[in-house]
Amino acid sequence: MEKLLYTGKAKQMWQTDDPEVLRVVYMDQATALNGKKKEHFAGKGEAANAISSLVFQYLIKHGIETHFIKKLSANEDLVKKCTMFPLEFVTRNVVAGHFASRYGLDEGKKLPEPVEETFYKSDELDDPFINESATIALGIATHAELEKMWGICREVNGLLTPLFEKAGMQLVDFKLEFGRLSNGEIILADEFSPDNCRLWDIKTDQHMDKDVYRRKLADLTQTYDQVLARLEDVIAEDK
Amino acid sequence: MEKLLYTGKAKQMWQTDDPEVLRVVYMDQATALNGKKKEHFAGKGEAANAISSLVFQYLIKHGIETHFIKKLSANEDLVKKCTMFPLEFVTRNVVAGHFASRYGLDEGKKLPEPVEETFYKSDELDDPFINESATIALGIATHAELEKMWGICREVNGLLTPLFEKAGMQLVDFKLEFGRLSNGEIILADEFSPDNCRLWDIKTDQHMDKDVYRRKLADLTQTYDQVLARLEDVIAEDK
Repeated sequence: MEKLLYTGKAKQMWQTDDPEVLRVVYMDQATALNGKKKEHFAGKGEAANAISSLVFQYLIKHGIETHFIKKLSANEDLVKKCTMFPLEFVTRNVVAGHFASRYGLDEGKKLPEPVEETFYKSDELDDPFINESATIALGIATHAELEKMWGICREVNGLLTPLFEKAGMQLVDFKLEFGRLSNGEIILADEFSPDNCRLWDIKTDQHMDKDVYRRKLADLTQTYDQVLARLEDVIAEDK
Repeated sequence: MEKLLYTGKAKQMWQTDDPEVLRVVYMDQATALNGKKKEHFAGKGEAANAISSLVFQYLIKHGIETHFIKKLSANEDLVKKCTMFPLEFVTRNVVAGHFASRYGLDEGKKLPEPVEETFYKSDELDDPFINESATIALGIATHAELEKMWGICREVNGLLTPLFEKAGMQLVDFKLEFGRLSNGEIILADEFSPDNCRLWDIKTDQHMDKDVYRRKLADLTQTYDQVLARLEDVIAEDK
């Protein structure tokens, strides 16, 4: 009997017969304000899964280890079971969102080098900002583990920034999460979709990510479908 | 004619005849909630200045360069003029205050190693938390400058933790600020008083710092006078 292990903001994680493998179900749901606002969007789970699967397969092809095994259905994947670090790794190429308001900056300013920020995953605490010193002192991760994970973030940024650019989108910022396999190896997990990155159309600056929902700018599923169609085109060329 | 250069939460900075020297006036005032709450306390300026002058002289005697030149009167000092970095450097030896609430921790837990946090000084932005990556990308300080300033913070912690311990107080956390002299040298500036550190009585855990005002626990000036008396005793022994 399959057991539900975890329900997140837009995904469920289920046990499978294999203790090292989980089934992920992408839900037709979007949340904002750290889950305080929630809404149903038909087709959104399928679009997010399609994008994330494409991106993870692209990363694997280019040498990044991830938890992704294979797509099971339109809104389901099989993934390697990990013990997750309770951290969000945010890489910012361009000023946007909270980063803009926190420091009184204009959205859209290109950063001279990517800004790297970690947030401690805790619903009760509203995912507070945390720095390396506190992460280590509180026993959340060691310096070496953080270096390993930031190294992967930099590789991902180096691969995805030009990929999205080819697809006519600027990769403004993105959030990654990491886990540890039972053999101790740290690998990229969670997902990569417009739920946890910002994508701006290079020509029009139009938002093509979850800000469409947060800021009520356009239809969410249609937007994700556009991102998917553009990505499919450029990935088809990457042979 | 002397010119008022700056009015902070508890101090004023005045020009002097010497372009490299400023006069600091400690005011009989305490603020909380980043200045939103403000109150007058007779004698508080004198007590804070007496403590800060003692501490800065102690640090100078033990090899730390600071902006402090000399006491002019009970509530006035002469200091070297610096261009200040708009950063607060907070070192935490024990969990307390915002750090406790931000991460859902109990106040009073000793940290396995000091936690180091920087805050970007901006009244409009409420002094937001900032990490090294953003500090560098926003051009606020370079990696080398941050290393230099954290190095001084660690030396200060190494000198003051045992000093306050001898005086029967635990140095729970403290905030330092740094500036640059006209010759480019980075030195410790601002002040060191119970306005910007937490001191707990070693035997009773009684608060002996600005939390007495923030949390309405005891008379502020009397508390600062107690800290001063204890410090004078241990510093008199340090010959």
